[in-house]
Amino acid sequence: MSKTIAINAGSSSLKWQLFEMPSETVIAKGIVERIGLPESIFTIKYGEGQKFEEVLDINDHEFAVEMLLKQLLELNIIASFNEITGVGHRVVAGGEIFKDSALITDEVLGQIEDLSELAPLHNPANATGIRAFKKLLPEITSVAVFDTSFHTTMPKKSYLYSIPMKYYEDFAARKYGAHGTSHKFVSERAAEMLGRPLEELKLISCHLGNGASITAIDGGKSVDTSMGFTPLAGVTMGTRSGDIDPSLIAYLMGKLNITDINEFINILNKESGLLGLSEISSDMRDLEVAQLTDDNANIALRIFADRIKKYIGSYIATMNGVDAIIFTAGIGENDIHMRKEIIDGITVFGCEMDAELNNVRSDERVISTADSKVKVLLIPTDEEVMIARDVERLSK
Amino acid sequence: MSKTIAINAGSSSLKWQLFEMPSETVIAKGIVERIGLPESIFTIKYGEGQKFEEVLDINDHEFAVEMLLKQLLELNIIASFNEITGVGHRVVAGGEIFKDSALITDEVLGQIEDLSELAPLHNPANATGIRAFKKLLPEITSVAVFDTSFHTTMPKKSYLYSIPMKYYEDFAARKYGAHGTSHKFVSERAAEMLGRPLEELKLISCHLGNGASITAIDGGKSVDTSMGFTPLAGVTMGTRSGDIDPSLIAYLMGKLNITDINEFINILNKESGLLGLSEISSDMRDLEVAQLTDDNANIALRIFADRIKKYIGSYIATMNGVDAIIFTAGIGENDIHMRKEIIDGITVFGCEMDAELNNVRSDERVISTADSKVKVLLIPTDEEVMIARDVERLSK
Repeated sequence: MSKTIAINAGSSSLKWQLFEMPSETVIAKGIVERIGLPESIFTIKYGEGQKFEEVLDINDHEFAVEMLLKQLLELNIIASFNEITGVGHRVVAGGEIFKDSALITDEVLGQIEDLSELAPLHNPANATGIRAFKKLLPEITSVAVFDTSFHTTMPKKSYLYSIPMKYYEDFAARKYGAHGTSHKFVSERAAEMLGRPLEELKLISCHLGNGASITAIDGGKSVDTSMGFTPLAGVTMGTRSGDIDPSLIAYLMGKLNITDINEFINILNKESGLLGLSEISSDMRDLEVAQLTDDNANIALRIFADRIKKYIGSYIATMNGVDAIIFTAGIGENDIHMRKEIIDGITVFGCEMDAELNNVRSDERVISTADSKVKVLLIPTDEEVMIARDVERLSK
Repeated sequence: MSKTIAINAGSSSLKWQLFEMPSETVIAKGIVERIGLPESIFTIKYGEGQKFEEVLDINDHEFAVEMLLKQLLELNIIASFNEITGVGHRVVAGGEIFKDSALITDEVLGQIEDLSELAPLHNPANATGIRAFKKLLPEITSVAVFDTSFHTTMPKKSYLYSIPMKYYEDFAARKYGAHGTSHKFVSERAAEMLGRPLEELKLISCHLGNGASITAIDGGKSVDTSMGFTPLAGVTMGTRSGDIDPSLIAYLMGKLNITDINEFINILNKESGLLGLSEISSDMRDLEVAQLTDDNANIALRIFADRIKKYIGSYIATMNGVDAIIFTAGIGENDIHMRKEIIDGITVFGCEMDAELNNVRSDERVISTADSKVKVLLIPTDEEVMIARDVERLSK
């Protein structure tokens, strides 16, 4: 019996879960927020609903990890550091190098840092988390789990953009996708729920959170996904535009007197999507209330549903078939209305929502009718347990 | 009986067809190429396979029109200018103003010029053609037929991008689409071929030429289309990229040391698509030969088919159904293999290609099997006759 910790380090945050393995029991989980800012917030949930919270200045990820380890001892969650035998780190960009999770050697850490160009906000933060654990617990097995690995099975026709081939050859400009760990998790669960081998199934996985991506999974392999070179592409998201006509960028930069392309990409990442359309909120819950009286909130939700429906249709074309459509992540798991709006709009594909079965949040279940030719599945995602499993697998 | 001339003026060209109306007989047609360049080429086809060609310097559109009118007399195609009672001009961008073709008054001409921001290469050239005719034949009925009018029926959820709403309100940043005259023509023909009222039909029209766009037509109305704010968006084209992750633009501008966004958009318009991927040609005919020995030519064609299949799937979602899929324009009318590859890849939607019926170029016919639930139609487009018809309609 051993304990494994799954880490998701952002630029100013560190989320974690501690698992008892191989039982996959969550012993504790927590988050450190506002790292490097005044009044960082340090939270741990453990035991039977117990919670520890402290507000203090945490200047860097190393100190965040130090605090975390110290509190695990003080709260008697662990008796000694030796109990923690493995740590798994979520890493956003694995490029074309990492087709699977990897034991973190110095070389691997160097590669993760070299890939920062593909995820300038995320990979450096991920690397910082890795270094912090390496320093404080140098002996434990350390594994990197990449958001992109699951998508490395995409065929060339899916991952290449229709731009000069030399941009792919010289600069690795291609589609990488994201949320791979989540898409993989729900596709494996879907096969179990349907009682059929994953190898035989054509699945469309809708990971709908503040970031959202749709993936076509044929025989257990990602064959296309809506996010692109970065997580900006694809469907409408909380604050991200998803796909737009590239010409619009030149036109609007002219209109707005913006000369730095990165400044405009920042608008597309942070001020667009549901927030930009509604001018109210990036949060579906706010918009579902606001739509009753506000036209822009209403159209924002209709656009959100429209883009997802269109991606589902396009991925049925890609696979020339579909056995099940999966909803997961914050919106996918909790937004009963949005799920219904999407499925009710595409009954031509042979899917039919059971309004009663669908009337639930975050449960794992079939939510289509018994007659529905294409099944609709609600599957809460669990990226952390996938990370813990990969630590187990690679430490053997 | 009267004669109507349909004009398609580009920045350095002027294409035209002269119709006998209302019979819609083409009496003559021609093209003036390299206007403003040395050794312009002036061609007229008329009568029973007769051809007139002259190489001379034509400095501007007015002189091109003057030459054209003079030759119509000299070649005895017309006996006097009075026979020409109407002229119709193709105009690329009609913005949100022109929901239908319009009689060209000074105000309308001003509006066309004001809309140049939406089509900087095209509208000024279209306006130049209009002025040339106004000057030389001031008395005849003059009508503007807009590429975008057919798409003005799109609902807001289709034409809005997920960007800040104020960019739509302040700068008219939205999807306009293109090839509207062609999509309209083939959808009307499709209804006649199927013997059903257009109002009842869900159609997907694939206008595949050097520029390519896919349109969802529900009840005779465009409800979504793949081109966007400009004709750069959508599927892979001869030299245009179609949709890409906006972030890729910032990344590649950095890599290529390009600071002017317009320079990069130019690459996406002129050096991308089939040409950029294959590094061989933007022409399907070249690539279909080259693919036998060249991997990049092969992948370029597979990507071309992939993007079209995905748009067809997405528009079946948009309309929650489809009765027929239409192929038109250069590639759509002539590329037997590509049509087959596309339809054979999406049989899940209930379409089945009849290889024998499909084995034809530029004929108007059903090319799916008798059992095919979704019909596949080959319909040669005719934008010029649509222009002539609108001149007739609006001159009454």
